[in-house]
Amino acid sequence: MQAPLTPLEFASRARRLYSQREAVVDGKRRFTYNEFFDRCNRWSAVLQQLGVVPGDRVACIAPNTHALLASFYSVPQIGAVIVPVNYRLSADDFRYIIEHSGATVVCADGDFLDSIDRVRAQLSGARHFVAFDGSKPGWLSYEESLAAALPATDLAPIKEDDLLSINYTSGTTARPKGVMLTHRSIYLNILGRLAHTHMTSAERYLWTLPMFHVNGWAFVWTITAVGGTHVCLRKPEPNAIFELLRQEDVTLFCAAPTVLIGIANAPDDVRRIAPRGVRVLTAGAPPAAATIQRIEGELGWSVTHVYGLTEVSPIVTICEPRPEDDGLDVQATAKLKARQGVECIAAGEVRVFDDAGREVVHDGQTLGEIVMRGHAVMAGYYNDPAATAEAFRDGWFHSGDAAVIHPDGYLEIRDRWKDVIISGGENISSVEVEGILIQHPSVQEVAVVGMTHEKWGETPHAFVVLCTGANGEADLLRRFCREHLAHFKIPTEFHFVAELPKTATGKVQKHILRGGRSNLAAQ
Amino acid sequence: MQAPLTPLEFASRARRLYSQREAVVDGKRRFTYNEFFDRCNRWSAVLQQLGVVPGDRVACIAPNTHALLASFYSVPQIGAVIVPVNYRLSADDFRYIIEHSGATVVCADGDFLDSIDRVRAQLSGARHFVAFDGSKPGWLSYEESLAAALPATDLAPIKEDDLLSINYTSGTTARPKGVMLTHRSIYLNILGRLAHTHMTSAERYLWTLPMFHVNGWAFVWTITAVGGTHVCLRKPEPNAIFELLRQEDVTLFCAAPTVLIGIANAPDDVRRIAPRGVRVLTAGAPPAAATIQRIEGELGWSVTHVYGLTEVSPIVTICEPRPEDDGLDVQATAKLKARQGVECIAAGEVRVFDDAGREVVHDGQTLGEIVMRGHAVMAGYYNDPAATAEAFRDGWFHSGDAAVIHPDGYLEIRDRWKDVIISGGENISSVEVEGILIQHPSVQEVAVVGMTHEKWGETPHAFVVLCTGANGEADLLRRFCREHLAHFKIPTEFHFVAELPKTATGKVQKHILRGGRSNLAAQ
Repeated sequence: MQAPLTPLEFASRARRLYSQREAVVDGKRRFTYNEFFDRCNRWSAVLQQLGVVPGDRVACIAPNTHALLASFYSVPQIGAVIVPVNYRLSADDFRYIIEHSGATVVCADGDFLDSIDRVRAQLSGARHFVAFDGSKPGWLSYEESLAAALPATDLAPIKEDDLLSINYTSGTTARPKGVMLTHRSIYLNILGRLAHTHMTSAERYLWTLPMFHVNGWAFVWTITAVGGTHVCLRKPEPNAIFELLRQEDVTLFCAAPTVLIGIANAPDDVRRIAPRGVRVLTAGAPPAAATIQRIEGELGWSVTHVYGLTEVSPIVTICEPRPEDDGLDVQATAKLKARQGVECIAAGEVRVFDDAGREVVHDGQTLGEIVMRGHAVMAGYYNDPAATAEAFRDGWFHSGDAAVIHPDGYLEIRDRWKDVIISGGENISSVEVEGILIQHPSVQEVAVVGMTHEKWGETPHAFVVLCTGANGEADLLRRFCREHLAHFKIPTEFHFVAELPKTATGKVQKHILRGGRSNLAAQ
Repeated sequence: MQAPLTPLEFASRARRLYSQREAVVDGKRRFTYNEFFDRCNRWSAVLQQLGVVPGDRVACIAPNTHALLASFYSVPQIGAVIVPVNYRLSADDFRYIIEHSGATVVCADGDFLDSIDRVRAQLSGARHFVAFDGSKPGWLSYEESLAAALPATDLAPIKEDDLLSINYTSGTTARPKGVMLTHRSIYLNILGRLAHTHMTSAERYLWTLPMFHVNGWAFVWTITAVGGTHVCLRKPEPNAIFELLRQEDVTLFCAAPTVLIGIANAPDDVRRIAPRGVRVLTAGAPPAAATIQRIEGELGWSVTHVYGLTEVSPIVTICEPRPEDDGLDVQATAKLKARQGVECIAAGEVRVFDDAGREVVHDGQTLGEIVMRGHAVMAGYYNDPAATAEAFRDGWFHSGDAAVIHPDGYLEIRDRWKDVIISGGENISSVEVEGILIQHPSVQEVAVVGMTHEKWGETPHAFVVLCTGANGEADLLRRFCREHLAHFKIPTEFHFVAELPKTATGKVQKHILRGGRSNLAAQ
């Protein structure tokens, strides 16, 4: 009598209860839930005709379109596993992910057919190629196939521990890893957030967040669960966002901080058309106080900070406002909203552990690593037992994020755990020290890393890019640090450099700083 | 790595995140979550000392007190099964339920020690008797035992399909049946309602609904899940309710219609002290338009109608407002609010089936029986395979409630399924025909039942109690019916009787009317 936990249940509920309601808006196209799920079932039938059987992987490379959204239903409901691919990656990355996942069918938006074709000869497992739109020799047309198909009737029975998706992380130093998420973990993750985000069937959700990003933080199913409307958007540019917000009466969207900053700083005439009362969920980095102030104070929206990782389905904490904090001013509120928050209901256990696996003191000071176990945690990395074993220790998934817990129980990320400096048994957040040094008028850029030290194990070293015309005086900076930091956190050496080594996306490569000390002048 | 689904998870979350927040208010006593769970763990230790092991049943007979609330944690967290007993039952019912459940420990509020003692000699399985308050020879003192105990540390590992509670239904014609609910079904039922009821950690919940009633509709754990405050109340009398609403800044409560009517009709000077914005969940019967108008229009509260049964954990539908219905007047809104609504997220499947097991047409007219399957449904009746088999047919639990589905997908109960009259293949709601006849000025009371008919299978017969001085003329009533009812729904015979046979609680005994036709004069 027990039914499996699966987000596909939300689809049958929405179809039964909201059949005539608008499910999807994508440019000029509009589908009711009835029409949308009819198309999903046709798409399932096409996939079955292409030989997709339960357990098979189907890779999808597309921006936020109705066809990609449909695939989040059509693929799993025949027992197959969806592999949503970041379309911003290179053709070689596409090749790697398609091959590593063993996808037998590759679906791509018209913009990406050429990229795939460039690596097609190297794809050993993919048997069929479907163009979501556009047409090209060697590509099956999605729309024509749908038109020719009858809705699938022999959907696969799902077990709740079956894989629903494999989501590839964007590895910065290594190849992407395939995070395996089950029907059960995603279902519970969605139910848990619904306890906190208070959505209704009147919700109209704007797809600013890429669907390829952990299944759009699982919002591909969340919006359907409440019977809301998905408003698709190919590219999250402020002008397009504000147009759709107004035209489609949007009530809710999710956005990474960069998108949020773009919105906050859109030109006045663009911002003027914004409806009020829009709710925004943000994650990835804490929203800056100035951004919150512009969005909440000027636009009249509300911003909620959530935290998660691909490996945990993905949302596990929410910075839920506390009744005790009602009435604080905007600055104080913004400071609170920058915290990652408390574990969501049904997220399982989220803790901050020190090196010995003990929960850190709730003092807002003591650094530890965020670890998780329970409902939200992935089934492992696909075909990568070594990486899986490394991520799990003593049954806990290790996030690699270093955080403190405040006395009110709210956690706040302070650093990447690997960048934390351990000096004389004390954990020092490199980000904290950087945050002080950057305030000095001579400092243009700074990175702080831990270097081996005979007595203390490690001590902080600061790599400083000076402002034009400024003099590099270590003593000045040292005195400045003394005013703002505990003694043990003050860098023992200052290295003045012309520039910091960075990745293509602009992240400082601290491992080069740690390894390359001898190449840089120290003072 | 998978964690079990259990409402006990809400307890560990609340203790970790809300330890200093007020958990329970009971008269002059107040406990933070830390204090409350410390007491729960001591109570668990006491139960373990009394020999309670996983799988054992512990019966509790008490009004809404902190001790009963604690038992909903202390009993299951050592792997035992809680049996909350309706304290309004007779001593013989207590005896039956304690014996049938095989409870080894019986806990009772001070008011019920004598009742239990009267049947104690007939209790073969109960080994220990604990007085939640008061004292009496032969009874262990709850408070003294707690004071002497150390918090339990060896809590039992829970499997999600373990029984959490056995809830005895109040059988009207037969002995109560023990509904077995699992950790998993109750956990999902709570998560599902949280998606709809939009609660926060600022919630202050008033215990008007008895906790014995399907674990207080599972609110014993729901409030803890959000980190809210439980405000206990021994007896749901309007004066006490209004006092606590004001004193304790209550934000939410649940109430059966009778309690709601009492609140709506409380004296003006009592109602005047009510805070505004209180939310009320009601179930058991549709709230009357006048009640809704007084509570929403005059008190400024909001009323939400939900539906469920002990056998389904218990809430499965909610009359969620539709955006399309915004702006309707109070009368029209009240009419919509009287409907049982749509299935909750995570409630599993809720359908209305005709006799052949097909879903009825969504026309607001066609009657069928409400059936359910999936997450919410009980594991069966305890030690009663025959009743279990009768309740489940083709994998669906049969509610015994007859309902229609409106074109917007909302279901509305019209009758008990056994009282539906099947005439010439058409289903007729006895309640609908009664609802018309009672509007006739001569009719004081009426009951309509189906009687065997050679041609039509069954036809409706009306049993009418006339107002004093009125004449019993069948033709007049028949003409009246013709103006308001479809032809096939008009009673073929009218029986004028001095009174209707009723149960002790005032329900008409239709089975007597059906069987006793020959004893009554027909016209």
